Amino acid sequence: MKESGPRVHLYEDVAAHILEQIRAGSLLPGEKAPSLRGLSRRLSVSINTVSQAYAMLEDQQILQARPKSGYYVTAQAEPETKPVHPPVAKPRVRTLRADNAIRQLLEDSQQAGVRALGVAIPHGHILPTKALARTLKNVMARHPLEVVSDAPLAGHLPLRQQIAKRLSSLGKAVTVDDVLITNGATEALMLAFRSTVKPGDIVAVASPGYFMTLQMLEVLNNPVIELPCDPQTGLDLDALESVLSEHPVCALLLNCNFDNPTGSLMPLQHKRRLLALARRFDLMIIEDDIYGELDHAGGRPLPVSALDEDARVIHCGSFSKTLAPGYRIGWLLGARHHEATIRLKQLSSYTAPTLIQMTLAAFLESGQYERHLRRLRRDFARQTTAMRQAVLRHFPEGTRVNDPQGGFSVWVQLPRGINTLELYSRAMDEKISFTPGPVFSATRRYTNYLRLCATQPRSNDGDAAIARLGELVFAMLAENTQRNTP
Amino acid sequence: MKESGPRVHLYEDVAAHILEQIRAGSLLPGEKAPSLRGLSRRLSVSINTVSQAYAMLEDQQILQARPKSGYYVTAQAEPETKPVHPPVAKPRVRTLRADNAIRQLLEDSQQAGVRALGVAIPHGHILPTKALARTLKNVMARHPLEVVSDAPLAGHLPLRQQIAKRLSSLGKAVTVDDVLITNGATEALMLAFRSTVKPGDIVAVASPGYFMTLQMLEVLNNPVIELPCDPQTGLDLDALESVLSEHPVCALLLNCNFDNPTGSLMPLQHKRRLLALARRFDLMIIEDDIYGELDHAGGRPLPVSALDEDARVIHCGSFSKTLAPGYRIGWLLGARHHEATIRLKQLSSYTAPTLIQMTLAAFLESGQYERHLRRLRRDFARQTTAMRQAVLRHFPEGTRVNDPQGGFSVWVQLPRGINTLELYSRAMDEKISFTPGPVFSATRRYTNYLRLCATQPRSNDGDAAIARLGELVFAMLAENTQRNTP
Repeated sequence: MKESGPRVHLYEDVAAHILEQIRAGSLLPGEKAPSLRGLSRRLSVSINTVSQAYAMLEDQQILQARPKSGYYVTAQAEPETKPVHPPVAKPRVRTLRADNAIRQLLEDSQQAGVRALGVAIPHGHILPTKALARTLKNVMARHPLEVVSDAPLAGHLPLRQQIAKRLSSLGKAVTVDDVLITNGATEALMLAFRSTVKPGDIVAVASPGYFMTLQMLEVLNNPVIELPCDPQTGLDLDALESVLSEHPVCALLLNCNFDNPTGSLMPLQHKRRLLALARRFDLMIIEDDIYGELDHAGGRPLPVSALDEDARVIHCGSFSKTLAPGYRIGWLLGARHHEATIRLKQLSSYTAPTLIQMTLAAFLESGQYERHLRRLRRDFARQTTAMRQAVLRHFPEGTRVNDPQGGFSVWVQLPRGINTLELYSRAMDEKISFTPGPVFSATRRYTNYLRLCATQPRSNDGDAAIARLGELVFAMLAENTQRNTP
Repeated sequence: MKESGPRVHLYEDVAAHILEQIRAGSLLPGEKAPSLRGLSRRLSVSINTVSQAYAMLEDQQILQARPKSGYYVTAQAEPETKPVHPPVAKPRVRTLRADNAIRQLLEDSQQAGVRALGVAIPHGHILPTKALARTLKNVMARHPLEVVSDAPLAGHLPLRQQIAKRLSSLGKAVTVDDVLITNGATEALMLAFRSTVKPGDIVAVASPGYFMTLQMLEVLNNPVIELPCDPQTGLDLDALESVLSEHPVCALLLNCNFDNPTGSLMPLQHKRRLLALARRFDLMIIEDDIYGELDHAGGRPLPVSALDEDARVIHCGSFSKTLAPGYRIGWLLGARHHEATIRLKQLSSYTAPTLIQMTLAAFLESGQYERHLRRLRRDFARQTTAMRQAVLRHFPEGTRVNDPQGGFSVWVQLPRGINTLELYSRAMDEKISFTPGPVFSATRRYTNYLRLCATQPRSNDGDAAIARLGELVFAMLAENTQRNTP
């Protein structure tokens, strides 16, 4: 994937070329953009292609058309530090193909001595391990036989009660019968897919999106349509609406609260509009809400399921991002497919471990979970800001980093021409791992993006790894410049 | 399903009629069976039908043909106490249909106050709950961070080592890389199916067979062929061979060591012949070996996987029948499909809980598991014998009960005309549950069979429940007699 000067073919490339000039400061806010004819000649593309590119940049409020004068760079286009996603061509149906990259990434990050900067799992140091151990011992002492016996199929009742209570506090009543305990959110999502879509059914997903769910849809033989997302407000609902008008989409996979990898938060009015669209087009929504509790400001943005009056949102959650990843406990509210999800759960892995379920129920009931969450949100806020700043400090100019209001995902856009798969292999030579951007897309977009996770307390070692990663990016950038200089 | 005198249509019914006469003592060993013509007239069926029935009974060594004289009852046909399965017509491909009976059974047996005689889960009283709790506390104290963190995808390494070591001791070397830890054998079996057969592929299963696997194949859209089984030696390999010659069977689901529900044990030479057949017909075998450790005499019959030199046996095991059902830990050796099973595991439920895996590894490593198994095998032997005797004592004459050499499954054949689904509903009115025979078949055979499980220490309460169940059978029998008397 070597770059040798701008190779421009499509209007997306033309748009990217203009964005690059704005970012590099050679086109400033308020300045006139090159004329259609001039740019068409310079890049050897048709005027029509340039015109398409400019229209898109106008939609994105990066350019502004002035009658009889041409296009001008807007004030919003000022250089800033947050990522901008590459322009998306018309979303198309894609059949996913086998890919074992993810497993390699997981195994790399678990290797001894590797400084894993991209692992989306909270480190034990910021988890209440002692309090959990105390709770667990109490549960074993008080229920010695029950802890080794099978739990009810839908899950240990007091745990379902606690989950129902937490969700009910968001406004819409949830009962224990609505809740199915699963082996982590992974199982919840898999069960949700398996009970709502048949092989061949089209599923809409966000781009960028969580790589594990992309792989699930691949093994289930569901083609996907990737929808563009704004790094701040999430899913582009206009794009969704136009896709729904044109394609028979069965389900939408959605993470609207601090999604992975951008950390975006969908505004409340967007959530309402989304539900109206779902109803209009008879769409099921599979909501992955595993980051919903991690609002840095201490709030709790509503899951879409809490606004759903039509039983068409399957809500999936877990304790893996907030309390104990290794416990592998999640849950699912199956809405109109709830019975089907319970049946599939029974046949897929029967019940979840009783001892763990009982421990979590007791931990929640005692109020310790809520206290822990208050501390954890502050920890993630601090760690995410620190990591973001470290990247901006140590990486080349032109690097952009998201500034999420929740979660711990740090989404980094590197200068164009840096292939993060290549960067990954160089970093692993020095035992540093992260998550390369292309795995967040079925179509291998985001080649110059990467995800870091602020899941560990800040440390000298972590800072050093980020600094070293920055040096590797500098080096690649220098190589590219050298290669492009005659 | 009311009986009103013998309704005879098929040769199976004719055979059952003769068996009934032998059981009732109206046809004794050594006596001449009714002539073809005579019986044909009496039952209003063709001579050909009677001839087919006699041929089958001859195959089963119940009748013996004497040239120019007719058919005679053999010595083997002496009234005895072990079940005989109803004759099976030519095995056919069956598409399974939705059935929620199993879930109802599970929920019934978990109801407070229900005396659950059919639950295939060892009761906490015969499990080493204290020793497990001690081990668990040690593990938490020594690895406070690791126990809340994610384990490697294929499972906690020391646990895989322990499992590999145990299996290797059976003769064929197994390495840690061959072992995948799962959320119980349920998940192992589901992963095995999903990575070996596509929807529509035919799977051969034993009849009677485990109801959960029948339901798995139903949701996976795999038609099944049910193969007859001998209650003592298991799968009928002649029937298998003839089915394989006629149908494109992709996989065979097999439980050859103390299977569920009959408790049969496949002789070693049958296992070898089975593997030769599998090779000849390019058949994958999915081996459910969850009862293999429960040999009442203290031995360890070989799993078929230990004899497999062709990587075509997927071996599934678990700790749910031997140590801690509520821990939900099993394993899988995926043979030629191992990589595919790991990938599917990752996407289906990610890893299994770390704390539980670490506890089991430590428990095995310390030698406590082996010591516990020695005691457990004796417990199950004693409990199974006691339960069998209680049934023979309290149930009507003509009742037959298996006498398994391992496991805890007590398979009961009631006199003809007793529908165990009807019996179930009467028993549940008195808060007694068991597993009715028909759920062990895709075609609802075994209407007069039921399964009990000797999973609890013998108690007055348990004996009383069996006695009461016997009374209910007596009552149904009396009703049937009354109905059939003009």
